Amino acid sequence: MHAPIAKYLEAEGIPVRIAILDEPEHGLTEEVLSQTDVLTWWGHRFHGDVDDAIVERVHQRVLDGMGLIVLHSSHFSKIFKRLMGTFCGLYVRNAAEKERVWVVNPAHPIAAGLGDYFEIPQEEMYGEPFDVPPPDALVFVSWFAGGEVFRSGCCYHRGHGKVFYFRPGHETYPVYHQPEVLQVIKNAVLWAAPSDGIDQRPDRTTSKGINRSEPLEALS
Amino acid sequence: MHAPIAKYLEAEGIPVRIAILDEPEHGLTEEVLSQTDVLTWWGHRFHGDVDDAIVERVHQRVLDGMGLIVLHSSHFSKIFKRLMGTFCGLYVRNAAEKERVWVVNPAHPIAAGLGDYFEIPQEEMYGEPFDVPPPDALVFVSWFAGGEVFRSGCCYHRGHGKVFYFRPGHETYPVYHQPEVLQVIKNAVLWAAPSDGIDQRPDRTTSKGINRSEPLEALS
Amino acid sequence: MHAPIAKYLEAEGIPVRIAILDEPEHGLTEEVLSQTDVLTWWGHRFHGDVDDAIVERVHQRVLDGMGLIVLHSSHFSKIFKRLMGTFCGLYVRNAAEKERVWVVNPAHPIAAGLGDYFEIPQEEMYGEPFDVPPPDALVFVSWFAGGEVFRSGCCYHRGHGKVFYFRPGHETYPVYHQPEVLQVIKNAVLWAAPSDGIDQRPDRTTSKGINRSEPLEALS
Amino acid sequence: MHAPIAKYLEAEGIPVRIAILDEPEHGLTEEVLSQTDVLTWWGHRFHGDVDDAIVERVHQRVLDGMGLIVLHSSHFSKIFKRLMGTFCGLYVRNAAEKERVWVVNPAHPIAAGLGDYFEIPQEEMYGEPFDVPPPDALVFVSWFAGGEVFRSGCCYHRGHGKVFYFRPGHETYPVYHQPEVLQVIKNAVLWAAPSDGIDQRPDRTTSKGINRSEPLEALS
Repeated sequence: MHAPIAKYLEAEGIPVRIAILDEPEHGLTEEVLSQTDVLTWWGHRFHGDVDDAIVERVHQRVLDGMGLIVLHSSHFSKIFKRLMGTFCGLYVRNAAEKERVWVVNPAHPIAAGLGDYFEIPQEEMYGEPFDVPPPDALVFVSWFAGGEVFRSGCCYHRGHGKVFYFRPGHETYPVYHQPEVLQVIKNAVLWAAPSDGIDQRPDRTTSKGINRSEPLEALS
Repeated sequence: MHAPIAKYLEAEGIPVRIAILDEPEHGLTEEVLSQTDVLTWWGHRFHGDVDDAIVERVHQRVLDGMGLIVLHSSHFSKIFKRLMGTFCGLYVRNAAEKERVWVVNPAHPIAAGLGDYFEIPQEEMYGEPFDVPPPDALVFVSWFAGGEVFRSGCCYHRGHGKVFYFRPGHETYPVYHQPEVLQVIKNAVLWAAPSDGIDQRPDRTTSKGINRSEPLEALS
Repeated sequence: MHAPIAKYLEAEGIPVRIAILDEPEHGLTEEVLSQTDVLTWWGHRFHGDVDDAIVERVHQRVLDGMGLIVLHSSHFSKIFKRLMGTFCGLYVRNAAEKERVWVVNPAHPIAAGLGDYFEIPQEEMYGEPFDVPPPDALVFVSWFAGGEVFRSGCCYHRGHGKVFYFRPGHETYPVYHQPEVLQVIKNAVLWAAPSDGIDQRPDRTTSKGINRSEPLEALS
Repeated sequence: MHAPIAKYLEAEGIPVRIAILDEPEHGLTEEVLSQTDVLTWWGHRFHGDVDDAIVERVHQRVLDGMGLIVLHSSHFSKIFKRLMGTFCGLYVRNAAEKERVWVVNPAHPIAAGLGDYFEIPQEEMYGEPFDVPPPDALVFVSWFAGGEVFRSGCCYHRGHGKVFYFRPGHETYPVYHQPEVLQVIKNAVLWAAPSDGIDQRPDRTTSKGINRSEPLEALS
């Protein structure tokens, strides 16, 4: 799935590196992550094969400031469920039906360049209720020909990092070759890039309370 | 810590049952949880002693519809961290200093009966940044004499359940004997009670996608 | 439109009083409003005939704590636009098409008793983009047979008051005779009822800054 | 007040144009607004002198996509109250007291470059309750030496435009000469810049419902 996305982003001037499940550490070594500003994640049948230690590493990196773009069936990836704290279930039907993605927050940068809506001719349906926390910003809602709706573009702030869930992208349709879909992914990558570097103060993440024994008023 | 809270809630007509860490299954058996509408959680030094299986059981019950009130140092309980998906760290100083709890959403039912603010004469300080998701509703912000602020009343919708974090309650001060604090806990219990029963459809929680093979349009 | 709603709410034990456009002050005198906890508003073609002074009176009462339920075409009422601060436009088509109202926040009290969705056999379509502020809580999203979606249940906290916009209710279909629709209206009335009485401190509303010349620290 | 802000933004490569109350149309002619991406607004004693027609013009432009940065006492400007739909009151004390501005959303681009907090040595106090809608994103909360807190950095999406309220800036202290304050204003200007141009379809703003007589399904 990654080839058309990588090709498009590179053509737009965004350097891309690819990591796949079969690589050692799934290609997500400490060194690779330390050089990554935004991670785009697509998975489907093999979520269970992802090493828990790598999930924790990515989780830490997101809370430190790395952006995370979660695509389509990655709603059930370990890393997304870890960040959401919910079951992340939904309804599904794979019947090559039409999806129409509506913009419900036209001021949001992830909606740039799209107009009121765009269509995907053939897609797998995902339907509500989608068991995620109410998003900090809801950008897209999808309509499906079979009768369902779905919150297809959901933004979250978590720690120092930004997370965007984007629904489209079933592997049996050419969704990631469609210009509007690629435009959204690019918008999301730019939105999710760390605004303030990466915060790696270790006590921030391991301590239930960082001790500040003196009143600030005494110090300042 | 639980005695004054239980006594107050019972006097207000809310039946209360107590569960403590040292009981088998920490007192949170399947049977007990199945009879619980809202669970109030206070813990401090022994978060690590809570059995992971019980945490998963409570987590499931919350997403099924049970309310959860998370008190003070329980910000670092396993169940709260599980639900939030973040590190839940903060700054801390225990210097018996004054806390003033400000209402920032006077329309919210958890703020009922409080006026613009109330004071706690001596408290442990908790300071921002508090590493939790932006709350779905922010009800209280605390001022501390030493120079910090804190988001002290945070509401979350998670699955079918409601979660409320409430900051005050250090064990060395008589915080849970103070009327305004008890009023907030009562307000929160009423707010968090399941509005629509408990949803226990098993596939809702175990499946990444519940199959709906026929279009709704064909069915209806 | 009001008869079936009033009849249902009264049967549910909620006292109802009716006010219509043609009455003096549209039936919304100071005295009537002072006895009103929640106001349900339905209007269509005659928004322009509503007296601005009455709109200001209702606006003041909402910010003081009165709940407001805004139904269907009242999205373009003066009072709703006044409270939202946006244009409140949308897309419309009256073609007796099917609407399916999906619950996207099952923990919310306004969703009580509904299941995953309910259907309205024939309705006027309202489509996104709906020019309102992002709701504080989004409860429903509608699917329409003609291809659109709509944020059909939107909660707002404004001042001491709660506002709920609920989309269904075109006058040429028996929408307000449908049990699920009436259930939502009842849920919304209970949710919007003032949690803490009515706040009528006059300087709260007329002053850009209420003077507090002494530090609280000096007073307390 | 505008000189240090304008000087700083221009040094950062952002072209600035200045408009003042005493100019014809307050300097905010149709032509000027049509060339403005982000408008920064500061006013204090003379809110009442701002022409209502100019307020409507700016309101329209914001909903079309222009960013608006509302500074300090402009919380009570006509344009901010028009956009918020609430009274926008607060508590005030001018006693040259210390303000400490805390970051509560470190992932947000407006918090870039600030650390956990920054201090303003002498400021006018603004205190909660602040009568505005719950912000779409809350970035800053202030602590004041006299005992109050305040939501000092509030983001709103309204129509196609973004609005940011930023509290500091009393005219008798050198607040706008302080680097952290200028940094926030620059961050906010970049955040509020239109992400997708300006939407000027006239029927979007004047019609309660833009007619779409044919189903999209028939058209596509």
